[in-house]
Amino acid sequence: MSNFDWPIRVYYEDTDSGGVVYHANYLNFMERARTEWLRSLGFEQDELIVQHQCIFAVHSMQLNFRHPARFNDAIIVSSHIVNVSGASFTFKQKIVRDDELLCEATVKVACLDSNRFRPKSIPSFILTEIQGEC
Amino acid sequence: MSNFDWPIRVYYEDTDSGGVVYHANYLNFMERARTEWLRSLGFEQDELIVQHQCIFAVHSMQLNFRHPARFNDAIIVSSHIVNVSGASFTFKQKIVRDDELLCEATVKVACLDSNRFRPKSIPSFILTEIQGEC
Amino acid sequence: MSNFDWPIRVYYEDTDSGGVVYHANYLNFMERARTEWLRSLGFEQDELIVQHQCIFAVHSMQLNFRHPARFNDAIIVSSHIVNVSGASFTFKQKIVRDDELLCEATVKVACLDSNRFRPKSIPSFILTEIQGEC
Amino acid sequence: MSNFDWPIRVYYEDTDSGGVVYHANYLNFMERARTEWLRSLGFEQDELIVQHQCIFAVHSMQLNFRHPARFNDAIIVSSHIVNVSGASFTFKQKIVRDDELLCEATVKVACLDSNRFRPKSIPSFILTEIQGEC
Repeated sequence: MSNFDWPIRVYYEDTDSGGVVYHANYLNFMERARTEWLRSLGFEQDELIVQHQCIFAVHSMQLNFRHPARFNDAIIVSSHIVNVSGASFTFKQKIVRDDELLCEATVKVACLDSNRFRPKSIPSFILTEIQGEC
Repeated sequence: MSNFDWPIRVYYEDTDSGGVVYHANYLNFMERARTEWLRSLGFEQDELIVQHQCIFAVHSMQLNFRHPARFNDAIIVSSHIVNVSGASFTFKQKIVRDDELLCEATVKVACLDSNRFRPKSIPSFILTEIQGEC
Repeated sequence: MSNFDWPIRVYYEDTDSGGVVYHANYLNFMERARTEWLRSLGFEQDELIVQHQCIFAVHSMQLNFRHPARFNDAIIVSSHIVNVSGASFTFKQKIVRDDELLCEATVKVACLDSNRFRPKSIPSFILTEIQGEC
Repeated sequence: MSNFDWPIRVYYEDTDSGGVVYHANYLNFMERARTEWLRSLGFEQDELIVQHQCIFAVHSMQLNFRHPARFNDAIIVSSHIVNVSGASFTFKQKIVRDDELLCEATVKVACLDSNRFRPKSIPSFILTEIQGEC
């Protein structure tokens, strides 16, 4: 099981008037990390749409917000795969600042047909790579 | 148990290049609905911060994305309280378009001290109103 | 020359840790108002794409930020057309809270082919309506 | 006159259902670049607020959108100072993909008191550094 770390800087756009990162924006950070994880495996999602009519969409997620991130924080999104099936895969993702856990999530991502938004099998050359990450 | 419906229009800002609403933006919609629910009970959150140092923050949530919303859709966020404790309360929220369920969530909201972001008791005059909604 | 007013509520998502609306989000508010203005004339942009391969995109804008809007503010976006050509039209838009001007903009919107993102003529049945608004 | 380049990746969150980057999000990209430019000069904006009650806010901007950026694009925000006064400074910013100009802006940033949001003089130790960049 391998872990993928992606560093992110918190900018004004990410915060709200409570003085902290707006809760929905952690989901953006987690998707950036999943996108970069796919890229690190050699998969560009724009090419997957054009060549394989395959788009990855969040099916469901469980989120726990522990401590807030703030403007200018340097945070890390840490991701690893915990489950893979033929049409979906599940991540554990943690957002940390130094050694402090800020937010954690379990995220199930489904493979969809990019035209019809219906479930479809993950192309086998991708599935093989993802299974190697478990 | 009373239900609170809040209508929302989907604009370009809410969508992504997959042609559908970007998943994190459903959380924005759900927070707008919770804000309007509080307003409907007579509570303005800017006043609660100033007068009671009380801010409501999402503690945890479980999300299921069923079908995508699209640009220009008229959707409804339907919310009701399912649990209340002295320092938090839990909503069930559904986003629907006509009779179709697009997204559903269980959202636990905690009362925090607005300066220190630590848990604090919900002021009793608010707690009474929220309990009346269960 | 007719004026189109669209009311908007400021939510947490719109603000930043400076305690005010994040500057880029005023552009979202202005686009919501332009979308509703088009709808008020009878034009749904999702249908214009499908039926006429016509999408409206911002070509250029001049923005002046005068005073900040804050969380929970009820603001109004006031829009009117100041110029129309065969392939673009220009708005003056103001964002006000009560009688206070918060932000003003001149926004030139171009008609583009929705597939190729190249300029194209505004369909005549739309152009006639827009010219009537000048 | 020195130029500051900041690379940015376009993610799903930045795009809209037109298939391109949503116009307001270019402003986010430009602010990230200005934040990193200030950091490169040794100034952390969270410290400037706490230590000097000084916040930088966009006063006005002129934007031209030339060509759209798309999902997964690697773009660069190129910034340089063109004018400095005692209470504001003005940038030229360009967003490019390879050698193609996508968006250009002139952005006037004002120094404000972070509590009252009223204009104030740029602290002299910052002003000296900024003038050195002209």
